[in-house]
Amino acid sequence: MSPPLTTTPLIVAKFGGTSLANPQRVRDMAARLVASHAQGARVVAVVSAMGSSTDELLKLAKSVNENPPARELDRLLATGEQISMAVMAMAVEALGVNALSLSGRQAGILTTGAFNKARIADIHADRLMKALDKGRIVIVAGFQGITTDGDITTLGRGGSDTTAVAIAAAIKADVCEIYSDVEGVYTADPRVVPHACKLDTISYDEMLELAAAGSGVLQMRSVEVARNFGVVIHCRSAFSDKPGTLVKETSTMEQAIVSGIAYDNSEAKITIRAVPDRVGIAAEVFGRVAEANVNVDMIVQNISEHGTTDISFTTPISELRRLKPVLAATVGRLGAREYIIDETISKVSLVGAGMKSNPGIAARVFRVLADSGVNINMISTSAIRISVVIEGDKTEQVLQSLHTAFGLDSDELFEETQLSGDELAAKRAKGR
Amino acid sequence: MSPPLTTTPLIVAKFGGTSLANPQRVRDMAARLVASHAQGARVVAVVSAMGSSTDELLKLAKSVNENPPARELDRLLATGEQISMAVMAMAVEALGVNALSLSGRQAGILTTGAFNKARIADIHADRLMKALDKGRIVIVAGFQGITTDGDITTLGRGGSDTTAVAIAAAIKADVCEIYSDVEGVYTADPRVVPHACKLDTISYDEMLELAAAGSGVLQMRSVEVARNFGVVIHCRSAFSDKPGTLVKETSTMEQAIVSGIAYDNSEAKITIRAVPDRVGIAAEVFGRVAEANVNVDMIVQNISEHGTTDISFTTPISELRRLKPVLAATVGRLGAREYIIDETISKVSLVGAGMKSNPGIAARVFRVLADSGVNINMISTSAIRISVVIEGDKTEQVLQSLHTAFGLDSDELFEETQLSGDELAAKRAKGR
Repeated sequence: MSPPLTTTPLIVAKFGGTSLANPQRVRDMAARLVASHAQGARVVAVVSAMGSSTDELLKLAKSVNENPPARELDRLLATGEQISMAVMAMAVEALGVNALSLSGRQAGILTTGAFNKARIADIHADRLMKALDKGRIVIVAGFQGITTDGDITTLGRGGSDTTAVAIAAAIKADVCEIYSDVEGVYTADPRVVPHACKLDTISYDEMLELAAAGSGVLQMRSVEVARNFGVVIHCRSAFSDKPGTLVKETSTMEQAIVSGIAYDNSEAKITIRAVPDRVGIAAEVFGRVAEANVNVDMIVQNISEHGTTDISFTTPISELRRLKPVLAATVGRLGAREYIIDETISKVSLVGAGMKSNPGIAARVFRVLADSGVNINMISTSAIRISVVIEGDKTEQVLQSLHTAFGLDSDELFEETQLSGDELAAKRAKGR
Repeated sequence: MSPPLTTTPLIVAKFGGTSLANPQRVRDMAARLVASHAQGARVVAVVSAMGSSTDELLKLAKSVNENPPARELDRLLATGEQISMAVMAMAVEALGVNALSLSGRQAGILTTGAFNKARIADIHADRLMKALDKGRIVIVAGFQGITTDGDITTLGRGGSDTTAVAIAAAIKADVCEIYSDVEGVYTADPRVVPHACKLDTISYDEMLELAAAGSGVLQMRSVEVARNFGVVIHCRSAFSDKPGTLVKETSTMEQAIVSGIAYDNSEAKITIRAVPDRVGIAAEVFGRVAEANVNVDMIVQNISEHGTTDISFTTPISELRRLKPVLAATVGRLGAREYIIDETISKVSLVGAGMKSNPGIAARVFRVLADSGVNINMISTSAIRISVVIEGDKTEQVLQSLHTAFGLDSDELFEETQLSGDELAAKRAKGR
């Protein structure tokens, strides 16, 4: 006598902070959920903290303790999403549909014990499924879980995307809708490249490379989970009903040579000059850097000349404070000449699954840059990505040239009015 | 090899919202805890939500749902104390002492399932005790617990006092310190009666009567729990080191005839005029009132005259909206003449355990009022309390006359500077 569950669509919808910035927006998003429910779907929502409340909680923590203990910080930050889930459940109920909010603990999200950067180990979705079977809309607090000791953990920045995809995987949802303030995934940032096109679909691997290369649409970990469990992600706008971009496994037939171009100007380039060239130098340098917990992105070691070599690498500007003492010590120990930091660089990356079967792409990229008179500082490639480090003030020109050269230009200009004024201002301030 | 626990003092300290209104105050309160800890005490803190954050959360709820579902409202409101506990734990750690925050769930506080007004059923304090044994200062979120289903419940307004006393009872603490913005329990509100004295001790029964009569120092339920389990409460100021008032069982020898005088101007007097006098009239009237969930305080039925009687009672002004339709229907059904509402009344109560053995107190009260030319509207008494309802604008005069007549006047004037400016303004606005 069990109901015919298999024929009912099962949707996980995730809302970011901007989509929940004020009570009116919460009500608008609740109306979306209720509309899906009215069309017969079973609906789970995953919510981020409202607006900038996570930043405010972080500021509060710092005001009493410059280095707040990790367990207490997670406990504090988790309240942001717990407020959202309760308020969203209230907004859904106000529209006449039964709702149930579940914290990370109540939703059965078990994580590792690494506070501030926990990873989801398992999801026990029994209570969630029971509520869905009763016709309720279930609202889950994103970004959090519990350890086996019952302590609350958080998943790190952007963790709500991961929560949503992991729940979609656990309950075998048909789709995981990620609502944000952008309409989907574009061939390039439309505010820099006005002829950018929205993509209808993109593969997991391409999305991962784009995310790693600086495209802020989706959080990398969530895409990894989606790829591992075959969850279809639908990136779409919280403020429009237009379809967005589907992130899913695509067949080889469809693979574009270049799907998108991303840039990242949040990194610095470090060069250690005139290092005596001997075996194990790179291991020595990057061993020390790793010990200081500094992330390194691209690495280049020049050809040795007169017995010395230059080692260059890029790292987030935010890591420089921790990195500098390591560099000073390393230069001294190795007998290198000096280290140089360049914070004005920009990394431009082309991503496309079709690159695998088209070996001439790198050469075409270099030709476009040479024709534009732009120097290439560093190069790195993967099977489906080419990244070049250039002078930062050439970023816009390079993006537009590459976008045109690889046939990505749309006939239409991107309309900025698709974004509301404050969203746009916020995004610009972030420098995305 | 267990440590000599029995010789170590065990303190529960509860901080209200004003004591935690901003980061500086949280740091100050953390310093208090650390000072007690340094003196060798085992320390548990129970915290309310910071400042007015509970009111802000309530406003947020109302902005998306005029009648928010009780379960979701409790879930939302509970975040206020969860924020406080994490921030307080961080502030304690900043002073170099290990802290552990525990939510109602983690502190093992089991409640009934009545959302918004749950009652504590049991406390499983194992985790709390273990942390104390490790030398940690434990911070517990007040106002909340969980049901056996694992849903969060709240205890209603002032519930953090009850949490503190219940934990003190469960772990057999030596004292439950309740920190607030007043120095203790006074013989009368010192802002109305400048010669009021702070009491060194007061019995549970007197404190209960004073709380019921309008003194806002302690929440009634917490005093009931303290009485039932013999918990010594120390009411004291968060902003001074002076000793406050101890609430505990006192011997008969010490009992003052009048310990304190309280007033309450938040009630209205309702009179139903010319009700045909027959058996069961009062049951009929108050049965209907109870069905509408309206609380009634004092009741007076006049002597019958010409076959009709007047029935008067007092009720909180806040209940009038719900009460009026009941009154209109009742007047019609009983064939009474009319009902009259008087919102200008004030109730003045004298409380003292010594009244039990001094039968002439009521007469002395009536004499003082007669000498002051004040009419008495209604009278009610208990073994240790006399309450009279008078015209509201005579409250100050009556309080001062009674305070002097019963020998309570201090030689010194109360210094208002004991309260900070904003506290005073806030208290006045509340009309306490």
